[in-house]
Amino acid sequence: MAKLEVLFFDVLGTVVDWRGSMAAEAASFFERHDARHIDAHAFADAWVARYDPAVEAIRSGRRSFVSLDVINMENLEGCLEASGLTPSAFPPAELENLNRAWHRLRPWPDSVKGLSRLKERFIVAPLSDGSTRLLVNMARHAALPWDTIFGADVSCAYKPMPRAYLRACELLNVTPDRAMLIAAHDYDLDAARRCGLRTAYVHRENAADPSKDGNPKALQAWDYDANDLVELADILRPAAQSSSS
Amino acid sequence: MAKLEVLFFDVLGTVVDWRGSMAAEAASFFERHDARHIDAHAFADAWVARYDPAVEAIRSGRRSFVSLDVINMENLEGCLEASGLTPSAFPPAELENLNRAWHRLRPWPDSVKGLSRLKERFIVAPLSDGSTRLLVNMARHAALPWDTIFGADVSCAYKPMPRAYLRACELLNVTPDRAMLIAAHDYDLDAARRCGLRTAYVHRENAADPSKDGNPKALQAWDYDANDLVELADILRPAAQSSSS
Repeated sequence: MAKLEVLFFDVLGTVVDWRGSMAAEAASFFERHDARHIDAHAFADAWVARYDPAVEAIRSGRRSFVSLDVINMENLEGCLEASGLTPSAFPPAELENLNRAWHRLRPWPDSVKGLSRLKERFIVAPLSDGSTRLLVNMARHAALPWDTIFGADVSCAYKPMPRAYLRACELLNVTPDRAMLIAAHDYDLDAARRCGLRTAYVHRENAADPSKDGNPKALQAWDYDANDLVELADILRPAAQSSSS
Repeated sequence: MAKLEVLFFDVLGTVVDWRGSMAAEAASFFERHDARHIDAHAFADAWVARYDPAVEAIRSGRRSFVSLDVINMENLEGCLEASGLTPSAFPPAELENLNRAWHRLRPWPDSVKGLSRLKERFIVAPLSDGSTRLLVNMARHAALPWDTIFGADVSCAYKPMPRAYLRACELLNVTPDRAMLIAAHDYDLDAARRCGLRTAYVHRENAADPSKDGNPKALQAWDYDANDLVELADILRPAAQSSSS
């Protein structure tokens, strides 16, 4: 069996709590702008729900590649309108700051410790639909110890497009069987497996995109299955690997 | 004046002592293979000297993009032949290990401390002709605290091609005037300036590629000039910036 060298991580939902973080930022925004009547959690869900259909236009080739920052801003304006608010009534810098909430998403409590342990033996890198700058800002904000960063703008491909996985493998000079994707979403792992990568499912509350039929339990047998990234580090430690092989 | 957000670093010569490191690895290789009569320093110089002409074939479009690992191996074989040795007489794993010396280049004594201080205020990233994997391995080996890594394979362009600088700015979502290149080579700074980036020259002994007419002194007035990366951190500290503006 090929030696595992690289761990790629889905980020939004898997490493950071996107929905919880965005609800908190939206609540703060509505409080500052006399719109406390809007349910911040429902607003965050509505915002996230627009993400996948918007990206699908790019995956299918109907729209040229634009970064997630552009898509998120369009969706933010759409959600404000759907909530009865007028986007142009807010100072542009305030909207920009709320959109940058995606750059400040909070890691799950185990993420930094788990990544740090995994980094001792493997190259660790995000493989995310977020832009490279978004992921750099997030890593600096949350002290995520990545070896390097692959945003969707590196390959100009959104997951689950095969190019997203294969270009990242190519840039780290590994055949796909020397890499593994860690994710809390089945569709992502399924695409990675089809590209030849190994797979590890991490159970996360609240990770599912409400625009998909999210299921917190893995529907398929992935190579590994862990409750969090610290547990994954335990599972992948040398003794455990050799005793299971 | 636009706010400076990103510092890009030339790596080979500027952050790591490539010629010194490679001479040491070559000496060890020749000792193990009964070829102590070959001058390891001259061999390292000859190896480095083949780098620029080989990359020029790619810059000019005469050859498709291949990574520096491929070029370095070709040049290693050429240098062994020029030294009267037969590359095929060595175990392939030994040649591969010597070629991987480029992944283990030693940082200058100030590099880790200087980068760590600069990282407190700026995004720090290599912008190198090395491959992404080479730079990831080097960062892990030498504890270089990059925020993210841009090898030549990200843009498929070797410096001083404008695309190398502009694609890195694009991926970090900055206009070139919000970025600066730090390098010990004038040709690199000159190309960065033409792309609109700011420039800082670092004086390094032994940094010049012997295939070029290297000059340890900056020939032009760059925006900043420092003896090492710790001094650059001093120069760019907030008080110094505001007192000079």
